[in-house]
Amino acid sequence: VDFLVPELIRKKRDGGRHSPEEIAFLVSGFAAGQIPDYQITAWLMSSFLVGLDNQETTSLTRAMKESGRSLEWKLNNSHLRTAGFKATALGPEARLADKHSTGGVGDKVSLVLAPLAACLGLKVPMMSGRGLGHTGGTVDKLESIPGFTMYPSEAQMRTGLREVGVVMMAQAEDLCPADRKLYSLRDVTATVESIPLITASIVSKKWAAGVESIVYDVKYGSGAFMSNLEQARKLARSLKRVSEEAGLRASALLTRMEEPLGAFIGNALEVRESLSILRGDESPLARPLRDLCLDLTAEMVFLSGAAGSTAGARETCDAALRDGQALERFLRMANLQGAEDGWESRLPVAPVRWALTSTESGHVASIQARALGLAGLRLGVGRRQAEDKVDPATGFEMAVAVGDRVKTGDTLLWIHARDEAQARGVETEVRAAFTFSSEAPAPLTRLFLERI
Amino acid sequence: VDFLVPELIRKKRDGGRHSPEEIAFLVSGFAAGQIPDYQITAWLMSSFLVGLDNQETTSLTRAMKESGRSLEWKLNNSHLRTAGFKATALGPEARLADKHSTGGVGDKVSLVLAPLAACLGLKVPMMSGRGLGHTGGTVDKLESIPGFTMYPSEAQMRTGLREVGVVMMAQAEDLCPADRKLYSLRDVTATVESIPLITASIVSKKWAAGVESIVYDVKYGSGAFMSNLEQARKLARSLKRVSEEAGLRASALLTRMEEPLGAFIGNALEVRESLSILRGDESPLARPLRDLCLDLTAEMVFLSGAAGSTAGARETCDAALRDGQALERFLRMANLQGAEDGWESRLPVAPVRWALTSTESGHVASIQARALGLAGLRLGVGRRQAEDKVDPATGFEMAVAVGDRVKTGDTLLWIHARDEAQARGVETEVRAAFTFSSEAPAPLTRLFLERI
Repeated sequence: VDFLVPELIRKKRDGGRHSPEEIAFLVSGFAAGQIPDYQITAWLMSSFLVGLDNQETTSLTRAMKESGRSLEWKLNNSHLRTAGFKATALGPEARLADKHSTGGVGDKVSLVLAPLAACLGLKVPMMSGRGLGHTGGTVDKLESIPGFTMYPSEAQMRTGLREVGVVMMAQAEDLCPADRKLYSLRDVTATVESIPLITASIVSKKWAAGVESIVYDVKYGSGAFMSNLEQARKLARSLKRVSEEAGLRASALLTRMEEPLGAFIGNALEVRESLSILRGDESPLARPLRDLCLDLTAEMVFLSGAAGSTAGARETCDAALRDGQALERFLRMANLQGAEDGWESRLPVAPVRWALTSTESGHVASIQARALGLAGLRLGVGRRQAEDKVDPATGFEMAVAVGDRVKTGDTLLWIHARDEAQARGVETEVRAAFTFSSEAPAPLTRLFLERI
Repeated sequence: VDFLVPELIRKKRDGGRHSPEEIAFLVSGFAAGQIPDYQITAWLMSSFLVGLDNQETTSLTRAMKESGRSLEWKLNNSHLRTAGFKATALGPEARLADKHSTGGVGDKVSLVLAPLAACLGLKVPMMSGRGLGHTGGTVDKLESIPGFTMYPSEAQMRTGLREVGVVMMAQAEDLCPADRKLYSLRDVTATVESIPLITASIVSKKWAAGVESIVYDVKYGSGAFMSNLEQARKLARSLKRVSEEAGLRASALLTRMEEPLGAFIGNALEVRESLSILRGDESPLARPLRDLCLDLTAEMVFLSGAAGSTAGARETCDAALRDGQALERFLRMANLQGAEDGWESRLPVAPVRWALTSTESGHVASIQARALGLAGLRLGVGRRQAEDKVDPATGFEMAVAVGDRVKTGDTLLWIHARDEAQARGVETEVRAAFTFSSEAPAPLTRLFLERI
């Protein structure tokens, strides 16, 4: 079927509803280079402002998935094949499981969760992205491990999934190429923050990746993409609904993102912190991160059918952190994906560890994750643009948490930097991320707020 | 000042208001090729859906005017110079006058109005466009005259304006190049029908053309771009307001466009009909067109200060049509702009004049101008795309008007075509433009409805 592109734009502009064929025509025509960028951005902006309903969002998700290759993981006969996508028949146990986070500052959950889920019998072929803007990316973090590849061979993927239960990869270029192309336009045309467009972008990739169940970690708060709870709920519902229409088991946890997640921000720094959690660290500074890892992993295990309740799954996960099983999985995965022997002692370290001391006395009232994420960009922790290179060693190490009492001169955090000048260069920005109060603020309990 | 384009798009998307500097940055950056099409169309769509306020519309108009050359007509020392624009100081008589129509079917008013206004002492340097879609263009009509150029030399312009009082030209390419570039994007991204964007497009060209007063003929009705009276009023007010902010005297007449204007549609056919009006034709079929020409010309004369009232101006215009003065101006203009001797007898004539007869009896209840305009495209009267060539000879000649009583077999109109097959090819479409009723419909009185 052939449509006139201006007529389709006009339809959406005037509040109309697209048929699945119309959306497929737009996406495939754009992916094939037959529909120019300027028409697609006019359509994107009208979709942004007018909205896409549930059916349109599902159609968009499907069209993006069908723009590229889809993966099919054959677990029964112990080999892995990439082929045209076929709807996955869910058995009683949907073991091919994944987790996706909408992005936070200091979010190293995947590094703990993936090996932990593997301990409980799940198969986790996890595709991750790189950091962009103030939020980090799992790919950058793992690439700080000397020798570690986020582009494993088919043999590495096969062995990893079969023997370790986990393989961690960078998002494959040939999955959802239309999404990649659309996203790069949305990024420069102010059409990113739309729930239907975000949903289609995320779900199409999980659909094409061939997993059977998916848990979404939808962040909300001042440090997240979604700063409004109602909007975060809407996104969570949308992700769950479209994933289910794609034949996946899905759920979403809403989790808070105000202060940084954990005590470290930075690529190698976050690998170190993940290892610490995997080694059983339960110190107060580690606690919120550890709890969130357990909550999300338990949800994955329950959702996939491998446990009868999340509470039961959480207890088993907790034990697997304590007894070193999860750590062992991580080390086996790293080994299989090329990490050099003795890599842990050779993780990059920044030349300078510069203490930022408090000029105020009182209780730490808040630590703005977004501000630290943005300051991190200037240390090379993340990237402003897709082409930028990251620094694996730099970042921040928290000395205090919200609620702590500090005196003038106490260390608030350490800046890991290339040199002292670089550290001083972000001092003002970092200092502004802290607020203080005379009264102790309500203590932070769980980051996990509700399940959708 | 440098702005980030995505931030400007976001601002408009979220309901913000642009500063004049922001709009100038967008327009000049786009005109210079520094801002890509895909960002501008995202901005255009957000402006379309969110709106631009009065100040923003004026800023956009100014930015488009300043994207190119502006004309300055020096009348006092009898020469004409093109130079950087300087605000026109309005004397008691603002003699440099123009008229702009938002576009209709069979609209040949300019061909009568321009020489008629010149008879009353106005100087009319009229820039016109070509036909696009179902509406015709003055350039195409005049170019059907053998030898006539719509691209007069400076000498021809000077003499025309000084001695005849009128020169008719195609829109100069170097006036408002940003508008030209923007319009070609709007045309293919469903962002045409926006009052602020239309206003800026029209007024910027009149501003750059250096006239002192401008009358807008805002068409409304099923055959016009604006089919809704309230929308037409809004456009009229917007045109007047922005023109006045540009230092022009301005007014707008709302006029009806349901059935074709006059009895002919087609390039040479409309030149013939204009000559007939200029020769004093007052027959019933010619009457609504003649009245509209008088109403608009009288408004121009009054607005420019050359008459104390429109009624007085209208009487003088009426006399100038009756006594052949206006015809003489037209013939002098044609002569000056290169028309060959004896051109009138050599106007292109289509090989076939094919009668379409009625299959119904009753009163003609309506004749849909838009349907005839679209059918005319298939005869080559107009163009679908800017690159198309037009046929100077083809078109339609009405045999009846709304209200006339017809019997089966009576001729409704004649199709002027290349051959009978071409005529028969549009028969169904043309027939569908007519509706009939048993009762006589209310007779059509004046096309001119109200003055804004």
